[in-house]
Amino acid sequence: MAWEGFRGRFWKEEVNVRDFIQKNYRPYEGDERFLAGPTAATEELWGELQKLQKEERAKGGVLDMETEVVSGITAYPAAYIVEGKKELEKVVGLQTDKPLKRAFMPYGGIKMAEQACTTYGYEPSEKLHEIFTKYHKTHNQAVFDVYTPEMKRARHNKIITGLPDSYGRGRIVGDYRRVALYGIDFLIAKKEEDFANCGDGTMFDDVIRQREELAEQLRSLKEMKEMAASYGFDISGPAKNAREAVQWLYFGYLAAIRTQNGAAMSVGRVSTFLDIYLERDLENGILTEAEAQELVDHFVMKCRMVKFARVPSYNQLFSGDPVWATLEVAGMSMDGRSMVTKTDYRFLHTLENMGPSPEPNLTVLYSSRLPRAFKEYAAAISVRTSSIQYENDDVMMPVWGDDYSICCCVSATQTGKEMQFFGARANLAKCLLYALNGGRDAKTREQVGPEYTPYVGEYLEYDEVIRKYDRMMDWLARLYVNTLNAIQYMHDKYYYEAAEMALIDTEVRRTFATGIAGFSHVVDSLSAIRYARVKAVRDEEGLIVDYEVEGDFPRYGNDDDRADDIAVWLLKTFLEKIKKCHTYRNSEATTSILTITSNVVYGKATGNMPDGRKAGEPLAPGANPSYGAEQNGLLASLNSVAKLPYEYALDGISNTQTINPGALGHSEEEQKKNLTAVLDGYFDQGAHHLNVNVFGREKLIDAMEHPEKEEYANFTIRVSGYAVKFIDLTREQQMDVIARTCHDHM
Amino acid sequence: MAWEGFRGRFWKEEVNVRDFIQKNYRPYEGDERFLAGPTAATEELWGELQKLQKEERAKGGVLDMETEVVSGITAYPAAYIVEGKKELEKVVGLQTDKPLKRAFMPYGGIKMAEQACTTYGYEPSEKLHEIFTKYHKTHNQAVFDVYTPEMKRARHNKIITGLPDSYGRGRIVGDYRRVALYGIDFLIAKKEEDFANCGDGTMFDDVIRQREELAEQLRSLKEMKEMAASYGFDISGPAKNAREAVQWLYFGYLAAIRTQNGAAMSVGRVSTFLDIYLERDLENGILTEAEAQELVDHFVMKCRMVKFARVPSYNQLFSGDPVWATLEVAGMSMDGRSMVTKTDYRFLHTLENMGPSPEPNLTVLYSSRLPRAFKEYAAAISVRTSSIQYENDDVMMPVWGDDYSICCCVSATQTGKEMQFFGARANLAKCLLYALNGGRDAKTREQVGPEYTPYVGEYLEYDEVIRKYDRMMDWLARLYVNTLNAIQYMHDKYYYEAAEMALIDTEVRRTFATGIAGFSHVVDSLSAIRYARVKAVRDEEGLIVDYEVEGDFPRYGNDDDRADDIAVWLLKTFLEKIKKCHTYRNSEATTSILTITSNVVYGKATGNMPDGRKAGEPLAPGANPSYGAEQNGLLASLNSVAKLPYEYALDGISNTQTINPGALGHSEEEQKKNLTAVLDGYFDQGAHHLNVNVFGREKLIDAMEHPEKEEYANFTIRVSGYAVKFIDLTREQQMDVIARTCHDHM
Repeated sequence: MAWEGFRGRFWKEEVNVRDFIQKNYRPYEGDERFLAGPTAATEELWGELQKLQKEERAKGGVLDMETEVVSGITAYPAAYIVEGKKELEKVVGLQTDKPLKRAFMPYGGIKMAEQACTTYGYEPSEKLHEIFTKYHKTHNQAVFDVYTPEMKRARHNKIITGLPDSYGRGRIVGDYRRVALYGIDFLIAKKEEDFANCGDGTMFDDVIRQREELAEQLRSLKEMKEMAASYGFDISGPAKNAREAVQWLYFGYLAAIRTQNGAAMSVGRVSTFLDIYLERDLENGILTEAEAQELVDHFVMKCRMVKFARVPSYNQLFSGDPVWATLEVAGMSMDGRSMVTKTDYRFLHTLENMGPSPEPNLTVLYSSRLPRAFKEYAAAISVRTSSIQYENDDVMMPVWGDDYSICCCVSATQTGKEMQFFGARANLAKCLLYALNGGRDAKTREQVGPEYTPYVGEYLEYDEVIRKYDRMMDWLARLYVNTLNAIQYMHDKYYYEAAEMALIDTEVRRTFATGIAGFSHVVDSLSAIRYARVKAVRDEEGLIVDYEVEGDFPRYGNDDDRADDIAVWLLKTFLEKIKKCHTYRNSEATTSILTITSNVVYGKATGNMPDGRKAGEPLAPGANPSYGAEQNGLLASLNSVAKLPYEYALDGISNTQTINPGALGHSEEEQKKNLTAVLDGYFDQGAHHLNVNVFGREKLIDAMEHPEKEEYANFTIRVSGYAVKFIDLTREQQMDVIARTCHDHM
Repeated sequence: MAWEGFRGRFWKEEVNVRDFIQKNYRPYEGDERFLAGPTAATEELWGELQKLQKEERAKGGVLDMETEVVSGITAYPAAYIVEGKKELEKVVGLQTDKPLKRAFMPYGGIKMAEQACTTYGYEPSEKLHEIFTKYHKTHNQAVFDVYTPEMKRARHNKIITGLPDSYGRGRIVGDYRRVALYGIDFLIAKKEEDFANCGDGTMFDDVIRQREELAEQLRSLKEMKEMAASYGFDISGPAKNAREAVQWLYFGYLAAIRTQNGAAMSVGRVSTFLDIYLERDLENGILTEAEAQELVDHFVMKCRMVKFARVPSYNQLFSGDPVWATLEVAGMSMDGRSMVTKTDYRFLHTLENMGPSPEPNLTVLYSSRLPRAFKEYAAAISVRTSSIQYENDDVMMPVWGDDYSICCCVSATQTGKEMQFFGARANLAKCLLYALNGGRDAKTREQVGPEYTPYVGEYLEYDEVIRKYDRMMDWLARLYVNTLNAIQYMHDKYYYEAAEMALIDTEVRRTFATGIAGFSHVVDSLSAIRYARVKAVRDEEGLIVDYEVEGDFPRYGNDDDRADDIAVWLLKTFLEKIKKCHTYRNSEATTSILTITSNVVYGKATGNMPDGRKAGEPLAPGANPSYGAEQNGLLASLNSVAKLPYEYALDGISNTQTINPGALGHSEEEQKKNLTAVLDGYFDQGAHHLNVNVFGREKLIDAMEHPEKEEYANFTIRVSGYAVKFIDLTREQQMDVIARTCHDHM
């Protein structure tokens, strides 16, 4: 009965959401005119939530915090946005017992969890302190137990940075749709089957580990039922209608965010899936468009509410309290049909019904083959809200199929069939400086890298620099991967993602994500050494601390192959070095060029570079060209980035661009058409990702100076890989955003 | 200064206690006449302790129990046998805060720990229950998480039994002498060196695991210092005199028994080592013989006090509250010198100074080459106390060198260089019945083994039975080893022996101990099938449930090669099957024939056998011939057992014999000489082990009927692999002991 009217057979016998979607979704080619505005309930709830958000900001960023209860799937009784008005909520379920109250999550690291409390004036529980120091070891303690002194030095000197060694690694997307399509009992039965088939009886370590993980997954599934029951829902069977589908799916996601505090807790690719339920109910006359939109609005509202307790050092890296509740719309099916449905519109429309918002991190899986109406609607939303990002479905589909999700800011994973070991970044800019200074850090004066011969000449010679750089990258890549190996091992041991993995195939593909920071500065520096004359400036100890550049040189971001070829070489070389190394659980190594807002912190730890970037200045974010490097307009800049082969950076190549509305045209109509043309052109070249901001520098300056203005309360901008409320950034980060290139012409 | 007068160099630079012993010990060839009686302090303390032991027995076996504190190295402040009279104790340190009070040890299994409390009327702590169910998983839970249904069935049907899956696996002997010889700081420095050298930077899983284990070991070493400091001792440096040496060594052992509740918590081979300190002090005139003996007596008193909280099912297996605080004396050095010192005498003499006692489990490492005076003194102690066992140094030394310890009842391990994964027993008698019944358990009617074709004929044909048995043993061996793999993996993960492993080399040899139960019954059954005519009796379902034997057949235990050859074949065959299997951490598989008192429980689960043993009757213990099988006297029985090659059962071949004093001679002088001759003859044939009891059946019957008699308060007997106070056995076990052969002639 729950599956009444659904076509197909295979997905009914095995867990296969993709098969269900492919057999049942109907592409929508029309435009946005069918969309409905917010219901009264939506407006009231969103109003309440905005009040809470204001209160939260007024209290310094945290509204309330748990100190006595360890977060868990069943840690809290049912709670609502407005107690006493629970009938307003079409989708229920809070992370804790109050809206926006942050949970206590000690498994990643008790120190971190406690510091988060004290930072905001809360007193951590003595009892829990005792438990997580005396009886139960945390991920953080375990990782530091095994780190080598070299790893600690590299971490301390920030050549390897942002390591998830004291909180959840995140980036695992449970296939939450499974809860809706199958109900928990079916999923339990399938996992029990997997358990029975796990190993042939020979208890190798990996078989034992897998069996224990399955036991934990089964426990989680049972707890999900219990949690749902506390809200009055029996999710043992499949969802019978759209409301249940949204609710069941959200319960799956809620289990994840109650148990893990990863840097990215993505929702996944849900729009086309949910559309099948919404359309069935609409067709059956048991749902109106306004009600359909309301379900999507309320679900999105829940995604806007996800919060974790963080410490100041974390907030410096990832500013503006992001959770990467990333949620995708659109994309193409492998059979050539567009996967755009009305519900893909409905999700984008939430930015109109409830205003712009950084979360969920709305991502359009883009192809020039998508229906024009949809492309233009998305572009219009970008122009109006600067709240969405675009990723190239044409390059991702051949690798990940047509049912992948974005598991963090920009990184794709096959939904329900893959998990990622996430692993922060290696600062390749610092690595270049280490190559020149024989492994010594000119800032801390420590010998961090191997004590290779420093560069001795006065002028930097390209071939010799490359030779030294290549060797230093060898060291860094190996150290980096092995540091991550230790982290991933301990995360599995002490902070396993049972709830998320319960909603992923047991036979899972594992990728091992690495990342690059300082990309553009290395490229430009090498270009300077090659095409100009760079003189090394040494201090009294003989360490190279600055550079004098004589003459001009091509820079990355101007569609100049001389620089762009260096960029491709750099990416490929680093990836190859990463791929050589042993990876935990024989996972597939990938890399990325994305830095979120951490470019500011990374820059602080990085000295003067041969490209003219001064010590301490922010690095360019992600794969962006350096600030001021782009001289030939937006398209030339995009062309440079588009040359980076996605195959070399399967974990993602993040590019963020800000366009003055005027550069796109004089009317919104013109702007959306032009932006669509820009996106078509960029992605048709094989580029991977684009954050689109449409505003002028003046607006940013005004918002920085007058954050109290009502219009800036929800003013959202895209930064490297996610969106953030501009007024939630520190002044330093605001200055960094303002310093970034704002394209006034194409 | 602490090493003043000690010779040698290598042991000063590296941890090498053997080298220290070899360079410094002086063999003693004289007799026992130098020995001193108990001091007043010893008598007073032992008197107090006996009062407590009486009280303990009066209270049903447990004097006191902890419920609120989780046991740990530093879990308790200093405590003494008699508070207020601590100056009496020359060796201090209790497991908890009161003598004989049992600690709460939940890491092996919270259910077990709680059941131990409730069994004796104690209320387990709710707080600890929450911690060890909600936050911290225990070994027991983890093992059951990964068991296959087949493993659970085999366990439930007791074809694999006594598995250490809910408490400590035990059988790891820390080299506690290291604490005395080096002090903790030196040991920390060496472990830190090992940590630095652990892996070449590539973080394979095994490198990560090892690094974490080293981190835990280092933590334990630091805690040992803290624990000693609470008693007013600074053990950071080496012991400076004999009293410190005994005390430091005991602190090492105390750390072990505060953190682990393994079935065997052996002390190790300490006598020759301690003798070097005692002799130095005696020579320097700072110690008298009475004081030397007092130190040994007080140390031994501490070993007599070791207690763990156990549950009824455990007590059924291992009756009489044993802890296997096994402690060895004698043995030969590889260079041909005897390792007997005065202190070896002193340890045996504790049985005279303080009367017989099951603990420490005193073991003489025997060789006919030992000094005659010592051999006869040991034999005299056996005649008087029946409290010691003998193991053949001549067969163990080639395998384990001259510094091995007995890690359980009879199993040897290289001291400080080896650890053992302990693993209970496979019931080969049941396995024979399964072979005949196609894997079905005639008792529970369950299909436990693989559904092979049952034996179909009316009369059992030897070749066909062997063929079927061989296949069924294949199944059993594989299942057994893999069950143990799961247990050992989880024990390392959830209940790692950090304190013991901290006192063992990092580069450790790992053995994987398996065991056989029902040995003699299989041998005799196969002999019956081969040499007599055995008719299968089937029940209405067609299951073979009994056997009718027509004619006579040779039995194991009569020095008859026809039976004894089957015994050798059985052992070798099973070992080969075990050795084929993958073992955890690539440990070396071994097997044993020893069953402790568990032969009674194992027998209950075993049906009628073709050798005439009736369903439910106890199995013969260890490698002993079956009750009543021995028809040709003690020597013939010993000859049969001696034919089992030690190489096939490196984990030990346990043999227990009871000799009527009259059979050994009319005077103690004659008895000890004759017993020495028996031991020389037995061990010169390559036999491994012998428990010697010297008493008549009448004494056992009288003790069973009149346990209240003062003379029976400490009446100790040797059972399979350990000693026990006879009155602490259940009546059923007493009956079993009485039923065993008591040799009235040689």
